Formats: sequence, structure tokens, C-alpha cells
Amino acid sequence: MVVIHHLPIHGFLGKHILHRELFFFPIVMAALWFGLKASLITAVSASIFYAQFFYHNIDSSRISIAVVGLQVTGFNLMALLTGWMVNRQRRQRRERDFLNETFGKYVSKAVRDEILGGRVTLNGELKEVTVLFSDLRDFTRLVETTPPREVVTIINTYFKSMTEAINAHHGLVLQFIGDEIEAVFGAPVALEHHQQWAVDAALEMRTRLSRVNLDLANQGFQPLQHGIGLHTGKVVAANIGSTQRLSYALVGETVNIASRIQELNKDFDSDILISAAVRQGLERCIEMHPLPPVPVKGILEPLNLFSINPTT
Amino acid sequence: MVVIHHLPIHGFLGKHILHRELFFFPIVMAALWFGLKASLITAVSASIFYAQFFYHNIDSSRISIAVVGLQVTGFNLMALLTGWMVNRQRRQRRERDFLNETFGKYVSKAVRDEILGGRVTLNGELKEVTVLFSDLRDFTRLVETTPPREVVTIINTYFKSMTEAINAHHGLVLQFIGDEIEAVFGAPVALEHHQQWAVDAALEMRTRLSRVNLDLANQGFQPLQHGIGLHTGKVVAANIGSTQRLSYALVGETVNIASRIQELNKDFDSDILISAAVRQGLERCIEMHPLPPVPVKGILEPLNLFSINPTT
Repeated sequence: MVVIHHLPIHGFLGKHILHRELFFFPIVMAALWFGLKASLITAVSASIFYAQFFYHNIDSSRISIAVVGLQVTGFNLMALLTGWMVNRQRRQRRERDFLNETFGKYVSKAVRDEILGGRVTLNGELKEVTVLFSDLRDFTRLVETTPPREVVTIINTYFKSMTEAINAHHGLVLQFIGDEIEAVFGAPVALEHHQQWAVDAALEMRTRLSRVNLDLANQGFQPLQHGIGLHTGKVVAANIGSTQRLSYALVGETVNIASRIQELNKDFDSDILISAAVRQGLERCIEMHPLPPVPVKGILEPLNLFSINPTT
Repeated sequence: MVVIHHLPIHGFLGKHILHRELFFFPIVMAALWFGLKASLITAVSASIFYAQFFYHNIDSSRISIAVVGLQVTGFNLMALLTGWMVNRQRRQRRERDFLNETFGKYVSKAVRDEILGGRVTLNGELKEVTVLFSDLRDFTRLVETTPPREVVTIINTYFKSMTEAINAHHGLVLQFIGDEIEAVFGAPVALEHHQQWAVDAALEMRTRLSRVNLDLANQGFQPLQHGIGLHTGKVVAANIGSTQRLSYALVGETVNIASRIQELNKDFDSDILISAAVRQGLERCIEMHPLPPVPVKGILEPLNLFSINPTT
């Protein structure tokens, strides 16, 4: 950079005034590309070069020492100013990017983008979705008999794998509630065939659980068992809470029924239960068997449920 | 700004070279203070003024038109450059501040600061805290019989008021789980007398519920009823989940017992139940009556609970 801006100087020794302006450009460019340090180094180099140049041409030049001093001060002030601005801007950009990424981890990238785009309202939006609940069996017992740090290790191994399965099928993890996962397919962004994606996610969660258990066995932990419940219907997706503390959440009967279906796994000794509404939306044939209708508190019609056969 | 930098010009008409440099300062200053538009306006004003000045002094000046053109180009380039940088920096700062605020709303400011400060680990930290759970009675029935948007209105009215009561007593809302609130006193930042703060929060939640009910009655909704359960003990505060999706959460028996105590409100027809561990940490005398010991699954000793008397 310094070299480049010295080159033209030798060509027009006469037009001194013009060249003096050219000294500003490498300084500003160095600031823009490399930040404060580079701009200061360039400014000091330019100052030295400029002073030397002045010294050797003292006779032919009409400029006083005061002007040279001012010029040199100008170089360095400009370097300081632009360099400082560029550095501040870069730090703010880094902070913004870090915040953006961290926020995305805590509410999921999809929800973050909806929130920042102002598309999630306090009022809520009615959507047709498939809701997935999963829950670990005997987790309360595990918590009671295992040191809490190990519980965190076990649950994070499990949650990590399940989140990957859900994300891979365009699902969104809404919450971890103790050992429970609440996920949605079709919100915040509408999703075609959300029933199929949700069932495929549940099947992958089943496959992944055996891998998680192998991993846990290697670390000397007991294997885990879980139950998954799916239900399709209308929900309101909204910002729940207050302006001080918000949560992207789904509200509606569909959510409560999906949670209830998940619990029914215990009664039927199954691991994946889906409602008739989910089954109706499926695109592919999946082996399952119907269960006797289950009456659910607050709903007129009993629930028609299907248990998805093990893949063995 | 433009006026100020013209003033000294008239004083030293002879030292033309020196003044030319001075034109840069108002331009850069305008950029720093007022952004791109201001710096461009200043640059154009400076250019016009400078060109006029040159025109009137054409005889005494030794500068060619080419140099004046270069100088004017220099002013405007500098204005464009610094103005653009300042604008970009301001936009990034606004974006960062907006992100910071929004993130704070979704995980709470205290947790956000702990996360951004790198003090929340995946491994977890053992802390003594008081855990609060509250839950609305008959909310499932409300969801079933009320349009979802109205449910969102009702629940947000309730959550807003309860969050304020919890925040006012140094508590932290961890999650809204359907109609349930999970809050903690003593994490992420340690808190002295967390038992007392938690009980005071519960008492304020009771007071606030009657106000919320008045508000709801005015809007034509049914009054709400809730139950609150408190327990004190060791928990592990950790980032739960995966690198893709995280949640600041508490793990340990204390959490499960607090949730269980909350549920016991239904059995005792009470609204605030606290454990003996909470009672032991209280600083003030609060009217309460002991309940018969309750055996809880997985715990050897039955729970000694106290119901806090109504304030009427």
C-alpha cells in the first residue's frame, strides 16, 4: 500500500500540491481494509516519506515548515479518525453477529428471523400445524438417583440428537420442559405435508434413541426410553408473556391433545402414537395399527389413535 | 458548521495552502456528528465556497484549475467515505441494540447478560435457590371453550402481571409452560434471603391476581384461579439442549419437588404452599399453617408443607 502510493510521486515532482492530497488516500484505504493499526502505520510511513521529500526539495518548494507540520498532523489525525471509526464499526458488527447467533440458539433461527422481521405478534396467528411431544420414561427416578451434572450430560446427549432429528425434518423445537420436548411442524413458517414430516421425524427419533443409548452405555449410563405423541390441528402461534419477558409459543386445544397423546404411550406400552388427523395427512404408507378409541376430558368425540409399528 | 470554518479564512488570505486542509475538518466532523447527508451537504458547500474563493483570487493564486478540481473532488470523496462509514456504523449499532433488547425479552435480561458474559456453561453450576411454580386452575377447560386469540389475551394479561411481581422480588421467569410459570430466586445471580423474596413474590402474585380478575371481568372474561408451590434446595443451572438450540434451565430433584408441591394445592384447596426448607429460610413472620406430611414418589422422607393463610 505504502509502496503503491509512492510510485506516482516520482513522476510529477513539480506538482507538489496535487501529490500531497494523494497521501490521504492510502491512509484512508489502509483504515478501511485493515483497521486502526494499519492506518496509523501508513500515516507514520507517509509522514516520514513526506518529510524527507520536503527536506530534499527544500529549495524548489515554497512551503514553510509549519505547513509541512500541519500536513503531517493531518495525515495522522485522519489515520486516527478513520482507523478508530473502522475499528469501532468492526467491533459493533462482531457484537451484532454474535448476538444474532446466540439469540438464534435460544429461540431457534427460524423463530429469531420471524421475531426480528416483526412477523410474530402479541395477538397471535392461526395456523394448521402438527405438534410433537416427547417425554423420557422414568426420568424423575434418574434425577433422584444421579448427580445433577451427570443428569445434564445425559439429557444434553439426548436433546442434541432429538433436536437434530426434528430440525432435519423442518420441525422446530419450541421448548424443553424438564425431560420433555415440545416441537412443531408448520410454524412459524407454513410447511406442506407437515404431518408426514412430523411422522418421519418421530421415526428418526426412534432410530436415534438406540444410537444415543449406545453412546450412554459407553459412558456407563443406563439406556433411556421415550414416548412420542403427534396431533394435527389449528393453533394460535403467538408471543406469550409480557413486554419484559416473551416466549414464542402455541396456544390451543391441539397442543393439549398432543401432550395427552404422548402420555397415553404409557397406557398402550407404545413409543409413537399419532391421532387420526395426523394419519389423514400422510403421503406414504407407514405400518401402524389402530387402538381402541380413547375418551379425553373436555372433548366430545373420543380420540382415534394409531400406534406406529416398531421397525425391527 | 459551514459558517464556523469559513471564519478563519478571511484572517489569513495569504496562507492559502494551510486553509485548504482546514476544509477537510468540517466535512469529517459533519460526518461524525450528523452522518452521510450532513457530510455531503458540508462538502458541496465547501466546494462552492472554495471554488468561489479561487475565482476571486485567481491572479494572486498559483494553483491551476486541475488542482482546484482535485481538491473539490477530494472534499466530496472524503465526505462520501466518512459519511458512509458513520452511517453504516450507526445502523450496525442500532441493529446490535435492537438484538440485545429482543434477546433480553426472550431469555430475560439477567440470563442474557450471563450468557453473553460466557458465565452459563453447558456443564452447569450447582446453586442453592428457591424454585417457584404457578399454574392456572381449569385452564384446559378455558382453552377448549374460548377462541384461541382470546386465550392469548387472557394468558398475556395474567403472565404480564405475574412476571412483574416475580421481577420486582429479584426472581427470574424461566419458562411459561402452557399456563404454568416456572421461576427461580437465586439464579443466575446468587441472591441472599431467596426464600423470603420468593414468598413475598408469591404473596404479591396473590394480590395481583384479584386485580387481573377485575381487569378480565371488565373485558367480559371469567376470573382466574391459580396455585403456587415453592421449594428450596440445590439445583444445577445449565444450558440445556444442543449447540443448535439452547435453553437456560434448572435440573435437579428440587425442581421436580417444587412442581409437585404446586400440584398439591389442588388436594389441599390452597393457593400458596411452601416446603419446610423454604420456611426455615424466612426472615419475617408470615401466618401459615402446617399440613399433614405428604409422601412423594422417589423421596424417602414425606414432605412437610405449610399453607400460607389468606390475607383477608
